Amino acid sequence: MIESPRSNCPINLTLEILGDKWTLLIIRDMMFGDRRHFRELLLNSEEHIASNILADRLRRLVEQGLIVKANDPSHKQKSIYSLTEKCIQLVPVLAHLAGWGSQHMPVTEEFRIRGRQLADAGPEGWNRLMEHLRQTHLEE
Amino acid sequence: MIESPRSNCPINLTLEILGDKWTLLIIRDMMFGDRRHFRELLLNSEEHIASNILADRLRRLVEQGLIVKANDPSHKQKSIYSLTEKCIQLVPVLAHLAGWGSQHMPVTEEFRIRGRQLADAGPEGWNRLMEHLRQTHLEE
Repeated sequence: MIESPRSNCPINLTLEILGDKWTLLIIRDMMFGDRRHFRELLLNSEEHIASNILADRLRRLVEQGLIVKANDPSHKQKSIYSLTEKCIQLVPVLAHLAGWGSQHMPVTEEFRIRGRQLADAGPEGWNRLMEHLRQTHLEE
Repeated sequence: MIESPRSNCPINLTLEILGDKWTLLIIRDMMFGDRRHFRELLLNSEEHIASNILADRLRRLVEQGLIVKANDPSHKQKSIYSLTEKCIQLVPVLAHLAGWGSQHMPVTEEFRIRGRQLADAGPEGWNRLMEHLRQTHLEE
């Protein structure tokens, strides 16, 4: 999956696939923003991701089995991206990042509230969200 | 703290300071490996971090208030790095990354056990670890 990993530590291996400034943002937008087409991910990106970076990271996420690319049944010419179970299980990681950022980074008030809500939802709330994502993304 | 952040989303702001392949590994080694000197962090690095990258990331972590650099009272010529409260609060993030990696990445058996232990410790276990880190790192 990763050629010549630097070590077998699970934190290292996870960072080898998620440890850059863009990958988790794409996952965030698919999870919480329900964006599943390339153009949505590109044009609605609050961080103004560049099209070549988006294409590269989507390709890598597909390779690593974190997302799946398929023809969109409702738009013949479009591809639709879906989260896999493996990726859906990152919800608690993103929730913790949001909680930590809400507390320690200079976020705006609106974002602070949303970040805290996500963090404070706790395992029960994250499970509900994961169940919802499974229903939306894992169905055939 | 960050000049011209890409957005005010707490996940984005967090990734702007932690979203690279090395920063969280240095924090991991300080938290779980009790490494607090430059040479230890360099020479014991399982991922063979390069000395210039280590120096750069330590400098940034100090700038961002995640670690503190001081003269080591027991080794006159050495600097010692300490975690700040803000950084100690990343324990649950690292625990979740370890848990996810243990489950989904091709880790060795030994690492799988250690990763699961950290993840399964849960909020109570993480609080104990955080308390221990506070006692070791935050004292004057």
